[in-house]
Amino acid sequence: MTAPRKIVLHEVGLRDGLQMEPEVVPTAQKIAWAEALLATGVDVVQLGSFVHPGKVPQMADTERLFAHFTAPERRPKGVVLSGLVLNEKGLERGLAAGVDLFCMGVSASETHSRKNTGMSIADASRRIVAMAKTALSSGKGVQLSVQSAFGCGYEGPVPRERVLAIARGFVEAGFDRLSLADTAGHAVPGEVAARFGELARLAPRAELSCHFHDTYGLALANCYAALDAGVTSFEASVAGLGGCPFTAVAGGNTCTEDLVHAWRRTGLRPDVDLDALIALARRIAAHFVRQMPGKVYRNGPIRQPEAALCPGAAG
Amino acid sequence: MTAPRKIVLHEVGLRDGLQMEPEVVPTAQKIAWAEALLATGVDVVQLGSFVHPGKVPQMADTERLFAHFTAPERRPKGVVLSGLVLNEKGLERGLAAGVDLFCMGVSASETHSRKNTGMSIADASRRIVAMAKTALSSGKGVQLSVQSAFGCGYEGPVPRERVLAIARGFVEAGFDRLSLADTAGHAVPGEVAARFGELARLAPRAELSCHFHDTYGLALANCYAALDAGVTSFEASVAGLGGCPFTAVAGGNTCTEDLVHAWRRTGLRPDVDLDALIALARRIAAHFVRQMPGKVYRNGPIRQPEAALCPGAAG
Repeated sequence: MTAPRKIVLHEVGLRDGLQMEPEVVPTAQKIAWAEALLATGVDVVQLGSFVHPGKVPQMADTERLFAHFTAPERRPKGVVLSGLVLNEKGLERGLAAGVDLFCMGVSASETHSRKNTGMSIADASRRIVAMAKTALSSGKGVQLSVQSAFGCGYEGPVPRERVLAIARGFVEAGFDRLSLADTAGHAVPGEVAARFGELARLAPRAELSCHFHDTYGLALANCYAALDAGVTSFEASVAGLGGCPFTAVAGGNTCTEDLVHAWRRTGLRPDVDLDALIALARRIAAHFVRQMPGKVYRNGPIRQPEAALCPGAAG
Repeated sequence: MTAPRKIVLHEVGLRDGLQMEPEVVPTAQKIAWAEALLATGVDVVQLGSFVHPGKVPQMADTERLFAHFTAPERRPKGVVLSGLVLNEKGLERGLAAGVDLFCMGVSASETHSRKNTGMSIADASRRIVAMAKTALSSGKGVQLSVQSAFGCGYEGPVPRERVLAIARGFVEAGFDRLSLADTAGHAVPGEVAARFGELARLAPRAELSCHFHDTYGLALANCYAALDAGVTSFEASVAGLGGCPFTAVAGGNTCTEDLVHAWRRTGLRPDVDLDALIALARRIAAHFVRQMPGKVYRNGPIRQPEAALCPGAAG
């Protein structure tokens, strides 16, 4: 018998969720949404990315968000603040801003890598590992990701050997928080199980994280396959916000409240405040004046006695 | 080594998909959609239900659809025509109309059973088994379903013992095509695996069929759990049409083309014409002048070399 694994929920709606929205969301609005998220019981909240504001204007206020939430009187207790960085300048900004957990990645697609970073996979890998070492030596958490790990909107299939080679580079450099990101939404459950299984054999003690997009309707199915394969950290966006502007086609991220709703029905993470997530998804849908991809927020959750749903189950 | 199981695709969009649509679709339109469906390579097409036309006006033309497609010159080759019946009058109409496969069910929720049929579960079970015997003795195929098998919009959780008791009644009466239907969309993958596992132990030689609704975003995840549990027949609706007017909350059915798209990526059922399904979903979305629940029809399928996707895989 092994102890139940701690399942980590990493909310990325304010970053991956918003970055493809053409309308820049006012900082005060983001702060209000972040406050709501930080109170739901999710473990990690990604406040933004440190990218060039000219390239992604939606992320131009990331420092302001960090300044707000790292102020001593507002510092959220027990919630990790993460930020995405793509290059040294971003890392420098993130270190100054007080990021707890740095998320960095290398694309397994040459085309995606070059479009996103202007670098080959090999060059990007060297650069990211060096950046990650700097962050680690500054006392920060680092999660290293293989992006486009299940296929690419430009290139199509991505060889598993290439995904594993990038991951092996991360492991050999000493990193133990590893993520596979399905940037284009191409993953199917069998492939998710296979690639995370390989990653777990490569790095048996690593914390594995997944990041899916629901472009073809498989985000939740892929989360279940990942859970079965030993993944313990799940990136998701409230209301199902999201998509990547640097891939040809990408739907929203895994929807946070849909995932939490499904989990609760088998006793996983009952501590996360589903009603608060649903209320926030409704506020976000009202803000954008459109139906968001999430399902659960539309009708509300299944209302029934929890005891009857998960006999003997525990979070 | 066992031979690969034959996976059956049962299209129910013209029945479960349309029955909650308030606007009655003209018969000529349904015929055009059915023609398109019958040419896609799906195995079974449900043309409609034989219910009281006053209760479900959308189904008032079911006889006309059967009359059209059972005419010798239009009889589809290799495709089974199924119809849903709720009572003896419906069975009589279905037998006269030339139904190949009768679908009948008993709800595992007392409230749903009484609202849907005016009968208790016990009475409905006796009636359905008697009807099924009549259909079988007329040389017809029969699929017997436990409806609300994973929870009920009125009652909440449904005890597994009750689901199994209804199924046991079907098995003891000699029926070997069994379905569990998640009428309200409450199922989660773990429960799907457990209940179909129990059903498979109860009836090891039965053909097991599943029917999910995507109310909470889990239809595809549940289809994967069902596939792993030995289910070989999948009910789905093109464009993700659907919902049940007799439950409190129900989203569309499993989306046919989303399921086929996912399957193709691991080599399952490459013979089904995905492009034709997508084209039809687009026609349906245009007819209703709204976005349908399906995902794949919006952007189109992932375009990449099939050989690279499913090395060595076969349908």
